Amino acid sequence: MNHTQPQPIPTPIDDTIELVERHLSARDLPALTEQLGQLPVPDVVLAFERVSSKERAVLYRLLTKARALEVFELLDPTLQSDLLHGLQDAEVTRIFAELDPDDRAWLVDEVPAALATRLLRGLPEAERASTAALLGYPQGSVGRRMTPEYVSTRKSYTVAETLERVRAGLADAETVYTIPVLNDARRLVGITSLRELLGADSDALISTLMSDPHSAEAVEEAEIAARRVTDLTLLAMPIVDSEQRLVGMLTIDDAVRILEHEESEDAARQGGTEPLRRPYLSTPVFSLVKSRVVWLLVLAIGATLTVQVLEVFEATLEQVTVLALFVPLLIGTGGNTGNQAATTVTRALALGDVRPKDLMRVLTRELRTGATLGLMLGALGFGIASIAYSLQIGAVIGLTLLAICTVAAVVGGGMPLLARAVKVDPAVFSNPFISTFVDATGLIIYFMIARAVLGL
Amino acid sequence: MNHTQPQPIPTPIDDTIELVERHLSARDLPALTEQLGQLPVPDVVLAFERVSSKERAVLYRLLTKARALEVFELLDPTLQSDLLHGLQDAEVTRIFAELDPDDRAWLVDEVPAALATRLLRGLPEAERASTAALLGYPQGSVGRRMTPEYVSTRKSYTVAETLERVRAGLADAETVYTIPVLNDARRLVGITSLRELLGADSDALISTLMSDPHSAEAVEEAEIAARRVTDLTLLAMPIVDSEQRLVGMLTIDDAVRILEHEESEDAARQGGTEPLRRPYLSTPVFSLVKSRVVWLLVLAIGATLTVQVLEVFEATLEQVTVLALFVPLLIGTGGNTGNQAATTVTRALALGDVRPKDLMRVLTRELRTGATLGLMLGALGFGIASIAYSLQIGAVIGLTLLAICTVAAVVGGGMPLLARAVKVDPAVFSNPFISTFVDATGLIIYFMIARAVLGL
Repeated sequence: MNHTQPQPIPTPIDDTIELVERHLSARDLPALTEQLGQLPVPDVVLAFERVSSKERAVLYRLLTKARALEVFELLDPTLQSDLLHGLQDAEVTRIFAELDPDDRAWLVDEVPAALATRLLRGLPEAERASTAALLGYPQGSVGRRMTPEYVSTRKSYTVAETLERVRAGLADAETVYTIPVLNDARRLVGITSLRELLGADSDALISTLMSDPHSAEAVEEAEIAARRVTDLTLLAMPIVDSEQRLVGMLTIDDAVRILEHEESEDAARQGGTEPLRRPYLSTPVFSLVKSRVVWLLVLAIGATLTVQVLEVFEATLEQVTVLALFVPLLIGTGGNTGNQAATTVTRALALGDVRPKDLMRVLTRELRTGATLGLMLGALGFGIASIAYSLQIGAVIGLTLLAICTVAAVVGGGMPLLARAVKVDPAVFSNPFISTFVDATGLIIYFMIARAVLGL
Repeated sequence: MNHTQPQPIPTPIDDTIELVERHLSARDLPALTEQLGQLPVPDVVLAFERVSSKERAVLYRLLTKARALEVFELLDPTLQSDLLHGLQDAEVTRIFAELDPDDRAWLVDEVPAALATRLLRGLPEAERASTAALLGYPQGSVGRRMTPEYVSTRKSYTVAETLERVRAGLADAETVYTIPVLNDARRLVGITSLRELLGADSDALISTLMSDPHSAEAVEEAEIAARRVTDLTLLAMPIVDSEQRLVGMLTIDDAVRILEHEESEDAARQGGTEPLRRPYLSTPVFSLVKSRVVWLLVLAIGATLTVQVLEVFEATLEQVTVLALFVPLLIGTGGNTGNQAATTVTRALALGDVRPKDLMRVLTRELRTGATLGLMLGALGFGIASIAYSLQIGAVIGLTLLAICTVAAVVGGGMPLLARAVKVDPAVFSNPFISTFVDATGLIIYFMIARAVLGL
């Protein structure tokens, strides 16, 4: 007899799996995200049970925070630990770490806090960073620098219970001196310290010892969080997710390292070079050249402006060659005044003493400062130049110094704020940059005044 | 009847007292020091018992460390505590705080460690600094920044005993997490931490828990000690006297504050201004001017060099006015190259990556870096200038750029090291300073080459 193999009737879930698998193999993550968003949670769980552990990890990472939590709880325990390993899998983390920030737009949410910590714990620092990327903490965020190896306690625990937790945590915890206090929803509600625990009697409740916590969100810029740690002189600061759930701690020594790196970067930028990756003496000359050549070229090209300006006034120069003698002095002084203002304001920004919204206040202060400096130098310049050359030349030099110092101070003070306002590192408007800019402006001012005074 | 008052026969000790009192009223401290040095200890004690508590404090401070300890032990207890108060007396501290370092040469020794701590404890931070001066710790030394409020233990103590000391110290101690270990001579022999204590069983001996300590001498530069704390990421580091006796601790948050202050200072100096004492916006314009005007004047006066150089070459300028067009471009590029080198090397010095003895290595690296940059810019400059003007002008510009970049890099890289070698803050050879220096040199190079190439 002839038997025909009975065709299995495709069920909606089969289609789903098919779709999912097609998208997966095509690495079409955005499409997957959208599709998973539409599926009812139980179907998602079903889908999870049918795919490989790597694929499961990828899929999981595409769920919204709320669903991720639901799904995780519905998974059977073996699959849960399976999933955790999958999420730490080098290949899986790579898939996400390699995404550039824009593509991460659809990487909908952070991973639930409970998972985040479990994922990061026990990982060597290097892998931690890449895994943190997978958790949705952007490049340069404190989420990438925090440690998950901490000891926490609960409001309802006693001192004795907490000390037990501390003893248990001693082996792994990176910091045990600052102890974050959580409520039953794992939310950060307070902070206490080993010091306070030692002072209290052992059956006292933590809720009576804890004080209001300072904290930072995992997605915040690492530098800002680090600055908070050192400004408040904390030994460690809790890092939370968008729902105030504890995900890690930023220790003061990591904060110091973060800030030191920033300082080096600012210092380098101020000097118009890229920061070095290794100690000076172990940096190959080639890398030294690389760290400087780009800026040097940009500045040199900017400086050709001065050539063009001078060409415009070449006639004036030929008539009164003596004017050429003062060019380096005048633009030099302008550059110096600009640098002084820029340095002061840049540092003030780094320390948080000044904000972009203070622009007007800064400008008026620099205007007054620059004008005062200009008056002093101008008077001096007028005196010397009138004696050495003529009263007219003296007037030109004096007035130019006054004008240049004022302009330079305002430009130098304003640039860093504008940079910050447009989210550029203020230090990028480095001193050389400002000098070059002020050079051209200064020359124009100089020759305009000269023409007016000398009646050319 | 006539009675004649019987004259008391002057004993040697009376003379001593007289002498002492004369010197005291004359504030002739050096003479006092010498005299006290010759007296046998018992006589010193006698003298101490006869003078006022303020005078006693002054006298005491003039004893050598060894004698100071002897004398203190021989004094009767009431006088001992008297002396301690006398040494904290505002007027007494002022007498010594006001001495400039040279005069302090004869301020023979540090105060014995045991006393030092007792003196500093319980003082508000402000008075601590002035008292530390009295103890013989120079301006800017870590002795002025350390805290005396710490908890220490002994090799021979058990964990339980130490934890008791910690609990007892909780109220006052500024730091209880890092615990220095002393031997019976009060010398620092090890370090342990509250963390380790919690991990050990309560009857274990400290000697079995402690590890080798990192430390700094109280007279060491605060910045260097602070850098050690952050580099080794210690929470606190023991500060000892010249005999390894514990006098205080430097906590990481104080270390961070010290370094932050240094950073601000360096940043300011790099920009050729004095650091501000208060936040930018709350600094009066007048102070802003003050922080800048001196440097600006110095640099302006330095810049008159360029005027003189140009005067020398005025004839050449009149013949070929086009040469004037490139002056700002050329000296600007020189200044930038110099700044880049100076910034990199200054930062390397601050981080301890480079030492003055590395001068030759730095110079050769900068020579090669500068030459390479010069070749690149020179080639570019030659190309552009030959097209825009003439082959000859192109040659002049190209060669000048090559020469200037090389010189500037070497000068910029060398200056900070020379500064450090002669114990001047490297950041003082600020970028503006180097620009000005390079400006003059650059002009000479430029016109020499121009004359040679153009055969003037």
